[in-house]
Amino acid sequence: MHLFDYLDSGNGFKVRLLLAQLGMKYQWTNVDIDQGLTRTPEFLKRNPNGRIPTLELDDGTNLFESNAIMWYLAEGSRFVPATQLGRAQVLQWMFFEQYSHEPYVATPRYICRHFPADHPRRAELPARLEKGHAALQVMEGHLATRQFFVNERYSIADIALYAYTHVAPDGGLDLAPYPNVREWLKRVAAQPGYIDLLARPVSAAA
Amino acid sequence: MHLFDYLDSGNGFKVRLLLAQLGMKYQWTNVDIDQGLTRTPEFLKRNPNGRIPTLELDDGTNLFESNAIMWYLAEGSRFVPATQLGRAQVLQWMFFEQYSHEPYVATPRYICRHFPADHPRRAELPARLEKGHAALQVMEGHLATRQFFVNERYSIADIALYAYTHVAPDGGLDLAPYPNVREWLKRVAAQPGYIDLLARPVSAAA
Repeated sequence: MHLFDYLDSGNGFKVRLLLAQLGMKYQWTNVDIDQGLTRTPEFLKRNPNGRIPTLELDDGTNLFESNAIMWYLAEGSRFVPATQLGRAQVLQWMFFEQYSHEPYVATPRYICRHFPADHPRRAELPARLEKGHAALQVMEGHLATRQFFVNERYSIADIALYAYTHVAPDGGLDLAPYPNVREWLKRVAAQPGYIDLLARPVSAAA
Repeated sequence: MHLFDYLDSGNGFKVRLLLAQLGMKYQWTNVDIDQGLTRTPEFLKRNPNGRIPTLELDDGTNLFESNAIMWYLAEGSRFVPATQLGRAQVLQWMFFEQYSHEPYVATPRYICRHFPADHPRRAELPARLEKGHAALQVMEGHLATRQFFVNERYSIADIALYAYTHVAPDGGLDLAPYPNVREWLKRVAAQPGYIDLLARPVSAAA
């Protein structure tokens, strides 16, 4: 398999962390999103939506959307529940992550790290951060009585939500008001095979 | 089962259409989102993220996120592929729908139908519609060589993308430039058991 990715991407990190915990080997290519390299004609043949991560499978199929890639890799493993309801609840939190969390937790981080202090996109921050706090509050409440998001077991739902939550302060989201979230972050980081977001894969092709 | 929903919601329609095509009976309650009824303490016990659709299962569990509800209902049926890659591709298009399509196709429709012409939220429309056209262009290209989104068979990926695409003109998105999308919309609407978005479920409890 060959993962087309961007090292600082939390969406890419989801896939890298899962691959590490599954003990799977893969080729890895860093695609510089700031230079527009996900919007070239060549890359759009892999993913017509022009985004990383995109995983090229051994048969040449390109799979995109981080959470769908995780599902492909983890289905049938210990990272996806064995029950119909458990699988749906994992997907419930993964869709929550993409719709109600990522645009308001990940995007502020991207804006803060990629645009100068006087850039017009900084104007988006207050409204995004307000919704980011709302997402964190939903997580805080859910974790008040739970160790992990579904069935008290670490799953790809935890990976999906961890990816940008653990670096939320980079975008201006203070995690101090969310002690349950902070304890859960520690539990995720203590899982066997954990790697850091910026740990460059050893199989890197570029 | 009991579906908490809002009749004009495309996200709710996904679940209603699938339930009709699966031939499943359910109780149905319309929750008026404009009156804030998804943000009451009572409703937040069902879905801490305060959104419809939310499906209460017979054991009392509440499941939320339209695409996760569809997965729960359709897993193992003809509406979800039998292969690992096919299932991941269905999820790929469902995550595409929630991240790159719904905020730019559904939200403009909501703004146009729920806010007066001089409302400040109308200012969001140009930027949202630009991204809506980008999402439709991705669909148009994919459908150039395909009858349905995955494996040439109607699946919950088609339902997820159909729900707001077929009413995209309500939000100001002209479908004329997308002939492949328009042909696919006709194929979806011709599926056995098809119902209209505004068809009130006969099992309605309220």
